Amino acid sequence: MMLGSVVRRDPAMTVQQAKICKGCWQQMHMPVPLRGVLSLPFRAVGIRPSRMNPNTCTICESMFTTVMRARKVTIDATVMFADLRGYTTLSQALSADAISGLLDVFYDQCAGAIWEQDGLLNKTIGDAVMAVFNFPIKVPDHARRAVAAAREIQRHWSDGSSARATEFGVSEAALGIGIGIHSGELSFGEFGHTHRDLTAIGTVVNTASRAQTAAAAGQILMTQAVFERAGSDVASSGPKPYQLKGFDAPIELYSA
Amino acid sequence: MMLGSVVRRDPAMTVQQAKICKGCWQQMHMPVPLRGVLSLPFRAVGIRPSRMNPNTCTICESMFTTVMRARKVTIDATVMFADLRGYTTLSQALSADAISGLLDVFYDQCAGAIWEQDGLLNKTIGDAVMAVFNFPIKVPDHARRAVAAAREIQRHWSDGSSARATEFGVSEAALGIGIGIHSGELSFGEFGHTHRDLTAIGTVVNTASRAQTAAAAGQILMTQAVFERAGSDVASSGPKPYQLKGFDAPIELYSA
Repeated sequence: MMLGSVVRRDPAMTVQQAKICKGCWQQMHMPVPLRGVLSLPFRAVGIRPSRMNPNTCTICESMFTTVMRARKVTIDATVMFADLRGYTTLSQALSADAISGLLDVFYDQCAGAIWEQDGLLNKTIGDAVMAVFNFPIKVPDHARRAVAAAREIQRHWSDGSSARATEFGVSEAALGIGIGIHSGELSFGEFGHTHRDLTAIGTVVNTASRAQTAAAAGQILMTQAVFERAGSDVASSGPKPYQLKGFDAPIELYSA
Repeated sequence: MMLGSVVRRDPAMTVQQAKICKGCWQQMHMPVPLRGVLSLPFRAVGIRPSRMNPNTCTICESMFTTVMRARKVTIDATVMFADLRGYTTLSQALSADAISGLLDVFYDQCAGAIWEQDGLLNKTIGDAVMAVFNFPIKVPDHARRAVAAAREIQRHWSDGSSARATEFGVSEAALGIGIGIHSGELSFGEFGHTHRDLTAIGTVVNTASRAQTAAAAGQILMTQAVFERAGSDVASSGPKPYQLKGFDAPIELYSA
């Protein structure tokens, strides 16, 4: 499905809506209706589209251990972090309403692009978004999809940046997005026995997060693993070494 | 309630368990049973103790807009960030199982200390935990409570650090916790129209987060706002100026 180029679209309206939960179908071959009359008995017992991806359900989100028969699994996946540059500075100058309006648009645009590629919008934290590709919806080309989502986020944000700069009374450069992507084996599951948080952990996650902090506004930085897997879709300027916090040796990153 | 000094306790067992949801009672004067026979009809429709605080319920967590009749509210609150130092470095050296075991203990100990003070464990992200005090459970002494929770986290972690260092084959110093705390007015509510995430935003949140990044292992750094409100409970070494990322002027922080 192609996306229109409206500045503020509603991602829930543009993302292709699955009739049954793609996660439950792929993981358990169980059809869980997400929409329409058949979904009503499920909704009555609290099973509904997940906030992390509307084509998966709350079973995928909160019953991981029951479904997978393990608290965590090791999977090959791609992790993407996107972060709003200048947010800390802006949040001191703008009103709470303006800041929350800005975050609404940022989260919604990220959600639309991530869901379009069957990714999981795992977390938002302040001005950052963390997405995982290849779970619970399996997509063999997860690296390529993460890059496609990142490009869509940058393209959309750039389309609206002039209007946004006027709206918030700042320069366009003050409001860019930095993105970092890494692929590889990670732990996915429920962490903490009491708070129980469904997320991914491991060095792949940290590397993606650190790559994001190194990215300039408007930039996508990916590791060699992502670059090699994403294939011919990715036109990139050759790798440069980056000294990332917590890493002994510099890491080669490709800019897309 | 006093806590025992076991190295790995189960926070759900030690935190005083409320019979009705404290959030729904304070915000709406509505008794929502959390435990026992009376809670069964509620559980059947998906209303159960929240993962963010077991003395509040999933109504507080996912029906904010309905309950508060607004997508967000401006409240006076305290925000605490706690972060595992050395995690990025360690995650390259340890197995996924070891790392997830470490995070389980870290999350669980943070959860216990935060819930003990009626705080909300709003998020975990990688090696960091974000807590909010004064919503949905109102506590006028939220600054003092956040400091108490921070101290409990540091005390507990320090108690177990020798055993943990042996278990993970690292030095005790490699595994400390840094904590940052700030109080003031912030926006609390649901952000993003599609992903819909219940959280706090604003400069108070950013300042707490930045203070945490400045804290050394074993240290608690609080702003003047927290220090003045927390009162005589807080013995602190006098303020020092810190140049935090994204802030023009240095910020005075007190070490507890």
